[in-house]
Amino acid sequence: MKIICKKTDLVHAVSTVSKAVSNKTTLPILECILIEAVAGKIKLTANDMELGIETTVEGNIQEPGKIAINAKLFSEIVRKLSDNDVTIETDEQYKATITCEKACFQIMGQEGNEFPYLPEIEKNQSITISQFSLKEIIRQTIFSISDNENTKLMTGELFEVKDQQLNVVSLDGHRISIRKIQLKDSYDPFKVVVPGKTLQEIVKIISGEMEEDVNIYVTSKHILFEFDQTRVVSRLLEGEFYKISQMLSSDYETKITINKKEFLNCIDRASLLIRESEKKPIIIDITDHSLKLNINSFFGSMEEEIMIQKEGRDLLIGFNPKFLMDVLRVIDDEEIHIYLVNPKAPCFIKDDADSYNYLILPVNFNH
Amino acid sequence: MKIICKKTDLVHAVSTVSKAVSNKTTLPILECILIEAVAGKIKLTANDMELGIETTVEGNIQEPGKIAINAKLFSEIVRKLSDNDVTIETDEQYKATITCEKACFQIMGQEGNEFPYLPEIEKNQSITISQFSLKEIIRQTIFSISDNENTKLMTGELFEVKDQQLNVVSLDGHRISIRKIQLKDSYDPFKVVVPGKTLQEIVKIISGEMEEDVNIYVTSKHILFEFDQTRVVSRLLEGEFYKISQMLSSDYETKITINKKEFLNCIDRASLLIRESEKKPIIIDITDHSLKLNINSFFGSMEEEIMIQKEGRDLLIGFNPKFLMDVLRVIDDEEIHIYLVNPKAPCFIKDDADSYNYLILPVNFNH
Repeated sequence: MKIICKKTDLVHAVSTVSKAVSNKTTLPILECILIEAVAGKIKLTANDMELGIETTVEGNIQEPGKIAINAKLFSEIVRKLSDNDVTIETDEQYKATITCEKACFQIMGQEGNEFPYLPEIEKNQSITISQFSLKEIIRQTIFSISDNENTKLMTGELFEVKDQQLNVVSLDGHRISIRKIQLKDSYDPFKVVVPGKTLQEIVKIISGEMEEDVNIYVTSKHILFEFDQTRVVSRLLEGEFYKISQMLSSDYETKITINKKEFLNCIDRASLLIRESEKKPIIIDITDHSLKLNINSFFGSMEEEIMIQKEGRDLLIGFNPKFLMDVLRVIDDEEIHIYLVNPKAPCFIKDDADSYNYLILPVNFNH
Repeated sequence: MKIICKKTDLVHAVSTVSKAVSNKTTLPILECILIEAVAGKIKLTANDMELGIETTVEGNIQEPGKIAINAKLFSEIVRKLSDNDVTIETDEQYKATITCEKACFQIMGQEGNEFPYLPEIEKNQSITISQFSLKEIIRQTIFSISDNENTKLMTGELFEVKDQQLNVVSLDGHRISIRKIQLKDSYDPFKVVVPGKTLQEIVKIISGEMEEDVNIYVTSKHILFEFDQTRVVSRLLEGEFYKISQMLSSDYETKITINKKEFLNCIDRASLLIRESEKKPIIIDITDHSLKLNINSFFGSMEEEIMIQKEGRDLLIGFNPKFLMDVLRVIDDEEIHIYLVNPKAPCFIKDDADSYNYLILPVNFNH
């Protein structure tokens, strides 16, 4: 194989596929990037058997072929080269020679044929959304997945399509995050659970442009994201996702409207006095026009008052400050509505258009 | 005590003195910042018994007094407050109440009188240099101090004043870094060894302005840096610094002139193929007009050629790439001169004005 690419193009492609390189594997070939120059295209692929990414690079193929090269070493070398044309040439012993200006590296690769190909995905079921929307809905839900492998389904997110709507749901036993977006077209319904890790990597790769689309295809076992020059294939999590409809209620006893930034900054200050291990709740005292936040810990105490609009009853309720902050950080609205029932029932942070709905369980506290 | 300061002033002062807060001590008082409001001045002090820093803050003293407050907690609280006036008030039980807008923190402090004062420094011997020069000479020498406590003197830097010149020297057994600067005035000679840790913290605090000065005072045991509203007092390292004059030689067999950035980038690329544990040297082959750099490691090989100007003999010599890169990173010149003798003798990187001189020992290699 002999190919010539621009350094910047190569860096971008290597960085894209590197997200799927395995870093804890007993199979050395999975630590590699496959470079293929066939049929006039230069394609880079990485695959850790759960998640696979392939992308194409602009370039000149002087001799077709393929080779698998250690991803970490290859990526470091490419990054440190001068900003100019890079030539990659391999011989029959899988030695790769990488040349740029007067610098010349030689490293050992492995036979490309041993690299596991990405699964073929049937393109029956699909939806199309903008990169911007996909990035937003992941960012606004990913924080409430669980990292506990014992509740495997909670480590992923439900993607549910019904007619012209996409619902994305994540939950971890203490909270539920729901984002709904309208699609441009109407689609056949489907429900899949996508691994959180896949979504975390997708967010890093997609540009987030409003004008650029992502085509998403699903089968019973896999999901495929196609965008720009890149294809991301991931296994799905198997099993039936949690029924959340009975946990959602639109009844409330107290509704408050509060400035999001003020509330977030206030909780952020209060949580200074809590160390991770301590699990102290912040206590929120809601009365007419005023929310008083209060915390008492080993380190000291803090209180602060925020002006609010309130409907319904006064309420004293405790929360894990992290759960509130996680939600407040991802909402773009300036003013938010919080719906509460009593000190033992979940609160809901949701907008009038029903585009997001966050459920958070309160925490018991001694008063 | 009751004082009112601007949040930004307070953040700046806390961040300055925090550099001298002890983080591994059995004395809780050393984890504190002392706040004193006396004689119309608000002063913050931290002291880990090796290094002490005090600075004053603008503000309004409503009731004089003093208190010691845990530095980490105080600094976190102050940073997270709104950008407005901050009131700090203490009671007889050393409880501190920190108020800003509607946020109100209460934390326990300790009696200010228990805080160890900074030593008084006699101001007999002194020099004055710009903050810019001090920052530069530290940055350009600090990388070659040793972190080995068994060779205590190598963990500091020699500051030697003679007439109108300041020489700063650091060494670690493999290399020596020397920076010389001309002072504006002539001073009585002195030689002191300043702990590396002190210099690392000073660099973070001083602004580096060409127009702002630092007054430096020395006694037999201490060094005092005075600048802006701040005083930094440090113990000196005791003992006679290494005699380096017999290690410096101006004889050479080979002199090369090379583009610094090209050389640095080339070594940086080559060192990709070396893992810390491996200690592989890079091999440099100097011939007329050309320097060829070469490395062979477990991971692969790399070679690159750079155009140079050369006087004297051809030479093949090996170096630890890190030692060369450390020097090249801090030199501001575009073109540098390297003086060499043979593959076993140190090389010198120095300028014609003799403002810097870096000695690096070569490494044996099997050819």
